Amino acid sequence: MSTIPETMRALLLTDGGVRFEAAHPVAKPAANEALLRVRMAGICATDLEITRGYKSGFRGVMGHEFVAEVAAVGDTANNQWLGKRVAGEINIGCGNCNLCRRGLGKHCRDRSALGIAKHDGVFAEYVALPIENLHLVPETVSDEAATFVEPLAAALQIGEQVHLHPADRMVVLGDGRLGILVALALHRQAIDTTLVGRTPEKLAIAANAGVKTLLTSAIAEGQFSPADLVVEVTGSPQGFALARTLVRPGGVLVLKSTFADALDSFDASALVVDEITLVGSRCGPFAPAIALLASGQIDPVPLIHAIYPLEEGVQALAKAEERGILKVLLAM
Amino acid sequence: MSTIPETMRALLLTDGGVRFEAAHPVAKPAANEALLRVRMAGICATDLEITRGYKSGFRGVMGHEFVAEVAAVGDTANNQWLGKRVAGEINIGCGNCNLCRRGLGKHCRDRSALGIAKHDGVFAEYVALPIENLHLVPETVSDEAATFVEPLAAALQIGEQVHLHPADRMVVLGDGRLGILVALALHRQAIDTTLVGRTPEKLAIAANAGVKTLLTSAIAEGQFSPADLVVEVTGSPQGFALARTLVRPGGVLVLKSTFADALDSFDASALVVDEITLVGSRCGPFAPAIALLASGQIDPVPLIHAIYPLEEGVQALAKAEERGILKVLLAM
Repeated sequence: MSTIPETMRALLLTDGGVRFEAAHPVAKPAANEALLRVRMAGICATDLEITRGYKSGFRGVMGHEFVAEVAAVGDTANNQWLGKRVAGEINIGCGNCNLCRRGLGKHCRDRSALGIAKHDGVFAEYVALPIENLHLVPETVSDEAATFVEPLAAALQIGEQVHLHPADRMVVLGDGRLGILVALALHRQAIDTTLVGRTPEKLAIAANAGVKTLLTSAIAEGQFSPADLVVEVTGSPQGFALARTLVRPGGVLVLKSTFADALDSFDASALVVDEITLVGSRCGPFAPAIALLASGQIDPVPLIHAIYPLEEGVQALAKAEERGILKVLLAM
Repeated sequence: MSTIPETMRALLLTDGGVRFEAAHPVAKPAANEALLRVRMAGICATDLEITRGYKSGFRGVMGHEFVAEVAAVGDTANNQWLGKRVAGEINIGCGNCNLCRRGLGKHCRDRSALGIAKHDGVFAEYVALPIENLHLVPETVSDEAATFVEPLAAALQIGEQVHLHPADRMVVLGDGRLGILVALALHRQAIDTTLVGRTPEKLAIAANAGVKTLLTSAIAEGQFSPADLVVEVTGSPQGFALARTLVRPGGVLVLKSTFADALDSFDASALVVDEITLVGSRCGPFAPAIALLASGQIDPVPLIHAIYPLEEGVQALAKAEERGILKVLLAM
């Protein structure tokens, strides 16, 4: 076990914006925690929203998608984790409330979340995280692929919440980072999946993996037979309105993105008359995501646009904001 | 088989409002239809909404909750139905469209619906209906109880759409006609059901059948532990906002009423973060509703406030509009 330094390089969100810091304090792991040496991390839409002031008013080290190795543990009882390569779940419940006791810790009203709420994130050399949040990453999963465990788990959450029938036709609306992962995951679990989006180059990534694709512009009114399940991943009110028209009566509409703007087109009465089921969906199970990456059944590497060193984190975030750019990673 | 008259008494919705007519033409049953002699009918919130101009712009004989006997059939191949006492499903699909071919006839975009859209209803002595819409009513079900088959079926639709777990705590919000039926149905299917409403006398009907009840005023902020499944039956934006606070993260919120007003409190992002499933729910299965009435496991008769003769239909509708009044029936 190598020596842990007192300070580290880190990318912080401050009142003055995002800033690279060369000597940020390294956390000390609590008894139930591990100190992780981050190897690589991914920039997610949520990170970009947070820099624009999304909800939490978070300040501190950013980032929540990562692969790391265990550098230290707070309790020698956890020594077996030392040196292991891991991914980590991002939500940390209080452990004591009504929701935590019901196994709903990820929804704990007092939760912290890596790089999102009340807990420093992974755009840094080190991060502390509870042992129970850790998942081993098999050797067959590259660091690059392992940074996709968290968003792929979020994609797999759909199958945890909704019964996916073999006869169902499924549509994913939105060809961004998460939309493509959702399409790849649904394609693996279901039989008839179509990714709908605006960018031929992005659709091609899913098409190369066997997913059917369709340009948004090709969906003429009434030309597209409504699907049994539609996943909305654009996060825009226009996307929601289009998604609503793509789902059949009695079908399921999964909302996989938060919406910065109000949904003026939301019609609750039409939801009742058409018996639509609307499913809000957030974080998902890590184990099956790791299994799909380990077996090569899902390969997220074609989504990677570039890998930046941590020192160039500000530029990396700016690149990830650009239209048409898929995944940007940070190497520590 | 008795002679069918040329004209009948009927309660019509006209451009000038609701009107009793002593000599309205009796329909001739088509080959696939039966002509039903209506025995008794129930007034539903939808009937009242239609008189206020709800959506459809419907004109004609009102009403869709009923019990009748088969007076004539359009094809002698259906003679076995003659004289049978029946309830009838209210939606009639076109039979040819994409949705009808998928078994989604009740959602057919060109559907007619008894007393609601493009098809005369049951507030009359006779009504024609496709044979395939009919369900036999056993002798153990009184005419009064049989008028509740349709709304009880709508209540049972929740269990058709949502997996009801034995460990789940369920809340029904709204102690109107449909709310009480939903509570009785959920209580029969689930184990822990609470009806929440504003009127002690209405709550008492459910309480007498073993359902837990709670006054809306008793739900102080944070005092009520969020439920796994909440059914919104108030149809008001305030009810929706309250129902949303009563459902736990990861839980299910069933919308059982249409909303005349927009839901300004609807927050799609919170739905995603809390992973709420929102289920629009409308018409349901008749067979289990009839079975529950036939076995006496659900007794809707305490909901009946009064039975009016058809001639006094206008007064009956006015009575059903009054605050605090539960079910008003019409006897033909």
